Amino acid sequence: MPKTVGIGLIGTGFMGRAHANAWGGVNRFFSLRAKSVLDTVAGIEEADADAFAQRWCFGRSTTDWRSMLDDERIDLVDVTTPNHMHAPMAIEALASGRHVTCEKPMAGTLEDARSMRDAARKAGRKGVHAWVWFNYRRCPAVAFAHQLVKRGRLGRIFHVRAQYLQDWGGPETPLLWRFVGKEAGSGAHGDLNAHIIDMARFVTGDELTEVTGAIEETFIKERAIVDGPGAAISGGRAGRRGRTGRSTVDDCLTFMGRMKGGAVATFEATRLATGNQNANKIEINGERGSLRFDFERMNVLEWWDNTLDPGLRGWNRIMCTDSEAHPYVANYWPAAHLIGYEHCFTSMCSDILRVLSGRKSVVPLPTFEDAYVTQRVLHAATLSARERRPVKMSEVR
Amino acid sequence: MPKTVGIGLIGTGFMGRAHANAWGGVNRFFSLRAKSVLDTVAGIEEADADAFAQRWCFGRSTTDWRSMLDDERIDLVDVTTPNHMHAPMAIEALASGRHVTCEKPMAGTLEDARSMRDAARKAGRKGVHAWVWFNYRRCPAVAFAHQLVKRGRLGRIFHVRAQYLQDWGGPETPLLWRFVGKEAGSGAHGDLNAHIIDMARFVTGDELTEVTGAIEETFIKERAIVDGPGAAISGGRAGRRGRTGRSTVDDCLTFMGRMKGGAVATFEATRLATGNQNANKIEINGERGSLRFDFERMNVLEWWDNTLDPGLRGWNRIMCTDSEAHPYVANYWPAAHLIGYEHCFTSMCSDILRVLSGRKSVVPLPTFEDAYVTQRVLHAATLSARERRPVKMSEVR
Amino acid sequence: MPKTVGIGLIGTGFMGRAHANAWGGVNRFFSLRAKSVLDTVAGIEEADADAFAQRWCFGRSTTDWRSMLDDERIDLVDVTTPNHMHAPMAIEALASGRHVTCEKPMAGTLEDARSMRDAARKAGRKGVHAWVWFNYRRCPAVAFAHQLVKRGRLGRIFHVRAQYLQDWGGPETPLLWRFVGKEAGSGAHGDLNAHIIDMARFVTGDELTEVTGAIEETFIKERAIVDGPGAAISGGRAGRRGRTGRSTVDDCLTFMGRMKGGAVATFEATRLATGNQNANKIEINGERGSLRFDFERMNVLEWWDNTLDPGLRGWNRIMCTDSEAHPYVANYWPAAHLIGYEHCFTSMCSDILRVLSGRKSVVPLPTFEDAYVTQRVLHAATLSARERRPVKMSEVR
Amino acid sequence: MPKTVGIGLIGTGFMGRAHANAWGGVNRFFSLRAKSVLDTVAGIEEADADAFAQRWCFGRSTTDWRSMLDDERIDLVDVTTPNHMHAPMAIEALASGRHVTCEKPMAGTLEDARSMRDAARKAGRKGVHAWVWFNYRRCPAVAFAHQLVKRGRLGRIFHVRAQYLQDWGGPETPLLWRFVGKEAGSGAHGDLNAHIIDMARFVTGDELTEVTGAIEETFIKERAIVDGPGAAISGGRAGRRGRTGRSTVDDCLTFMGRMKGGAVATFEATRLATGNQNANKIEINGERGSLRFDFERMNVLEWWDNTLDPGLRGWNRIMCTDSEAHPYVANYWPAAHLIGYEHCFTSMCSDILRVLSGRKSVVPLPTFEDAYVTQRVLHAATLSARERRPVKMSEVR
Repeated sequence: MPKTVGIGLIGTGFMGRAHANAWGGVNRFFSLRAKSVLDTVAGIEEADADAFAQRWCFGRSTTDWRSMLDDERIDLVDVTTPNHMHAPMAIEALASGRHVTCEKPMAGTLEDARSMRDAARKAGRKGVHAWVWFNYRRCPAVAFAHQLVKRGRLGRIFHVRAQYLQDWGGPETPLLWRFVGKEAGSGAHGDLNAHIIDMARFVTGDELTEVTGAIEETFIKERAIVDGPGAAISGGRAGRRGRTGRSTVDDCLTFMGRMKGGAVATFEATRLATGNQNANKIEINGERGSLRFDFERMNVLEWWDNTLDPGLRGWNRIMCTDSEAHPYVANYWPAAHLIGYEHCFTSMCSDILRVLSGRKSVVPLPTFEDAYVTQRVLHAATLSARERRPVKMSEVR
Repeated sequence: MPKTVGIGLIGTGFMGRAHANAWGGVNRFFSLRAKSVLDTVAGIEEADADAFAQRWCFGRSTTDWRSMLDDERIDLVDVTTPNHMHAPMAIEALASGRHVTCEKPMAGTLEDARSMRDAARKAGRKGVHAWVWFNYRRCPAVAFAHQLVKRGRLGRIFHVRAQYLQDWGGPETPLLWRFVGKEAGSGAHGDLNAHIIDMARFVTGDELTEVTGAIEETFIKERAIVDGPGAAISGGRAGRRGRTGRSTVDDCLTFMGRMKGGAVATFEATRLATGNQNANKIEINGERGSLRFDFERMNVLEWWDNTLDPGLRGWNRIMCTDSEAHPYVANYWPAAHLIGYEHCFTSMCSDILRVLSGRKSVVPLPTFEDAYVTQRVLHAATLSARERRPVKMSEVR
Repeated sequence: MPKTVGIGLIGTGFMGRAHANAWGGVNRFFSLRAKSVLDTVAGIEEADADAFAQRWCFGRSTTDWRSMLDDERIDLVDVTTPNHMHAPMAIEALASGRHVTCEKPMAGTLEDARSMRDAARKAGRKGVHAWVWFNYRRCPAVAFAHQLVKRGRLGRIFHVRAQYLQDWGGPETPLLWRFVGKEAGSGAHGDLNAHIIDMARFVTGDELTEVTGAIEETFIKERAIVDGPGAAISGGRAGRRGRTGRSTVDDCLTFMGRMKGGAVATFEATRLATGNQNANKIEINGERGSLRFDFERMNVLEWWDNTLDPGLRGWNRIMCTDSEAHPYVANYWPAAHLIGYEHCFTSMCSDILRVLSGRKSVVPLPTFEDAYVTQRVLHAATLSARERRPVKMSEVR
Repeated sequence: MPKTVGIGLIGTGFMGRAHANAWGGVNRFFSLRAKSVLDTVAGIEEADADAFAQRWCFGRSTTDWRSMLDDERIDLVDVTTPNHMHAPMAIEALASGRHVTCEKPMAGTLEDARSMRDAARKAGRKGVHAWVWFNYRRCPAVAFAHQLVKRGRLGRIFHVRAQYLQDWGGPETPLLWRFVGKEAGSGAHGDLNAHIIDMARFVTGDELTEVTGAIEETFIKERAIVDGPGAAISGGRAGRRGRTGRSTVDDCLTFMGRMKGGAVATFEATRLATGNQNANKIEINGERGSLRFDFERMNVLEWWDNTLDPGLRGWNRIMCTDSEAHPYVANYWPAAHLIGYEHCFTSMCSDILRVLSGRKSVVPLPTFEDAYVTQRVLHAATLSARERRPVKMSEVR
């Protein structure tokens, strides 16, 4: 009999859907010793929460997320609310003995993230786990990249070049919560740089030591105010009323840095890179080989093997769908029967269930400890942009 | 209250999984007036069928598929067995008043397909539906291609160039049922050409009038015999025993033809195109524009607009994930948060549920009538190969 | 002191320019024992020929090409006229003791080609050489593909898939000589299939044994008549006068075949593949590896090494500009400082000068003997199209 | 009668060859009122210079470059020596009344560049011209990008993302002059950033106002010493002797900046980006459209038209070889008969000859005035890296 893990999900937006789908699908695709149970979903409006529960097959819904912390059926609380709510929710849930999985960025501020990290440390002593949804780690191509580096296939790393480019933040997009500093903490920076900082750390196994010369920019300073509950990420085009409000987050934040192992790294996050809709990209150049990944072609890893005969060296487009060789994919479809965005979440659920049933995850899961390091880099980059100076990571604790 | 549609699935292999996943997911992603209910799954071995039912959340399992035809809870029978079983199962199910959805190719022989078509005609008079799983029609890129042609964006069509290239049929792959003529009817031909013939017809809206010069080849004539129930499509590498048997299907079948509208068309299906794992490709060249699709990059449609300024003409890589413009995608994730193979099935389920609740499908569904035309082309191509001559479609009734 | 080779060029059109440029540049890029001397260019109109001679630095011009056959300074006659003139010119030039290089297709008819082959055999006994300008053999990527196959890197070959797609033959293009059967012999077939038949033979080292099911089509049956001397290949858009004439060549010819080594091969040539401007493409699938080439990315060879670890297999985009590994490129520019169309001609000149000074060519040169085999395939394909039947190569002598 | 322009070329290395080829070819491809005459080449060793003159058809050679300044036959002095020689040579040549074309970077130091700019201003009053070989401006794709921006097709520009990535600078490459600070001034920075700064300025028509957070790194600190005259750029692998010397230039320099029009710009130059051999890349994101260029596919410009219907927007791969629409290409070959690296130089020669015969260049030529602005950006980036601070362009005069 598999152990069951009761899930209490907070939030019914884009990420709520992505997580509900993953928790619902994980035991269909993966054979595991633990089984997720979609127990409760917590939302703001009763009707919405109820409809969400119906659609995604949760046992019940609530508008009082705290009620889940007393509910014996719930083992894990999954937080997908706006960023400023991550800390209070995660900390209370951990205190109640629930495992926590929290959307990224970990928090809107370094202080929040630190409290969360501390709460997780404390809870960890009692066997309680806390993770952040850096879902891209479980793109098979990214997980495989991590494994290749670990096997030494890149050798000494010279360059890390990471970009997360989107383009939905044009002037026609209204003032969603993602443009409100108090709720979001930051704009493209926390939303997108968080992902590529985590990815750079995850794939290289290396850490930044210094951040330099960040530029932060809000290109679109005023945005239309729309009424009604949280317009979806792509839904901004409707409903201007003439009223506008000030965007209080960055549209882009770009920075550079140095890594412990000697690599020079560049990072760029933007919502105004017209033509790039979800271009979460990284290239790593090493002495023995190079890697390239672009989420817009998520099943593919490009690999340059610098140890081949010169005449045979090239950018090798590996379709990471070989069930014998590439992580996670044996649980889905045959070779080149591509998987999509949502499967990264499903695979993350499978690793969470593995850990909760006493096994090891296939590749490392992003713990709060881990995510806090990423949050420190985010903070250092913001400092660098605002104080117009290089910032050593040792300054940011 | 949405109408419910009880599903009886026959088969627990690769396609059984794909359909179970789709029927299970459709009402999560789509808002519809009808709701699928995963009622019963029928398998060969009780333990397997039961495990499948558990995993994919069916209400029950059986080893007697016929029992489903007396079960009031079942409204639709979904056939995913080897090809020679399609006709008997579909025909009996239709006769019992169940809607039928049948895997492709429609049948292993033209005779079987004709009986199925006739049965569907008869059942159709009583409001019973019958469809074949030409799932690729519902890749958003393919459905969008269909719409572009319908809007006249290609003008007069000169060329259709369709290839379905796979490479899992190397000498190391054992004698699966797919290599046994009695069960499969044909090899790459029925398996892969069926898809691209349907796709060519679906996208162009045109029909072949003649097939010429087909070549049929079995490159690997002997294959290892492995024991045990149907090794999965990708599972062939294990378990040689020294014993071998004769492959009695084609490894590739390639042919050319002419279409009513004047286009010259080429088709190629093979399981030995090393390096092409699931390259289901089509290119269509018209006077006003051209289209290209390759399933290995399934979210993308390449479009050449020949009416643009010469300096601005080029192959336009359209990411078919715009929720306002591309079919089906609004039900999944935001722009460029890619979807995968399985979503074509889910979207097909959504159109089936639309039709069963009295609405229109977003793009045409492949009926038995429709699939029979495709089967006639398959047959004409086989005739052409074996009799070494051009075959007019009017010869094949 | 290098030996000099006096060049007499016939023709001042597109190919005249390409050859003049190559003969003029070869000794700048290559270090050779022989040196080309641009002696005479023969044209139709005196003024044109003279201007051409000035521009391309020929010693003199003439309107009487036969006069070159008595000229001691001329060692090699280079024929770039319309196809029906190839035979008389080449045969006379060979009889006069001149080496001949002739544009492709070798001839407009098999009979012409046979006479040329016979003339070359006879001349060959006196040490006189005759070659056809299958220039694409000397794209470094194609030459390297030839070498890889020769080294056994593909193993048993299953498929050859060759296409030469252009799109300049739309209804707006006037009745150039290339559309006049008497001058051109054929349309896309001789112009484009000739190239890819040669390329398939050159890269695989294998020969066709049978041609099946060819389709020949003239989509645009009437074209505008324009006055004046031979409009350039791309120049057709100007100058309609209302008068039209019948196009007497094919716009496309597509066929299939079998090769001695067991491969199934497909060939397609067309001038109406909208969006493909010079897509001279080939893909070869073997048991140990596969190759892909597309002239529209001429510096690149795609290579799939099927002997690698499954996880590392992929399409490897090799930039064939490594001076140590790839043929010819050491004579041009550093790595990835790309070369262009014209360099294939220059490299072919270098191999011709090597042979004329007693050395071996880097990869085999296309002799008249060789080109005659290609012409036989062209002829067999035409027969197959017109007689609607398979044609064995042994029928065509 | 066309006016003649006598060329005196200094330097016989990689760039000497590229320029000799271009000056020799320009009047073959282009119809112009002026004609270049390859008069004299100046080298270091007499034998080398003589062989170079023979091969590239110069009238004579010399080892005394100054002698050319008294030679009536020479109208233009072309400087291709190591960077520290640019200033003395260019300044003396200008003073002698010769037009000057100088390789990039303009100079090794800002001071040198300033003297050159001043000398050019002075000479300019007498009708003498001075240009720097920013050859990539005349890739047809880049020149076309410039024209598209000028026509307003990008609208407000948000991002400029420029990278020039090479990989020949691995530890096996010896201590060429390019690694010696005294001769080269800088490493990847002057060699590669110079190109992309110029390209960014040329395409956008905008200027940097500030440079931030540059990182400069010498990954390979010791390199083998080889004897003999300047090993070619790609020739470093031979001849270690055990002795090593210190590399005194950067291997990479990466920086960010802001532009007058509000764009955020990033620049990266490196010789250690394994797998990138000549990846001179730029992407520009505007409100109305975006552009992408990568020299490794030099005939292509990628263009995203944000004013199209959402469903039809995509990255449009324009093959910039349309003789009616794309600059320069009508002078070479038909559509998609690709041109190569060298043609950018040839096209630049054509524009130089146009200007020297009183006409306008097709797109703007990079004057010394222009190149000095680029040199100021190089200097600001170096300052930023060394002083670890943002540098306003107004600080660098």
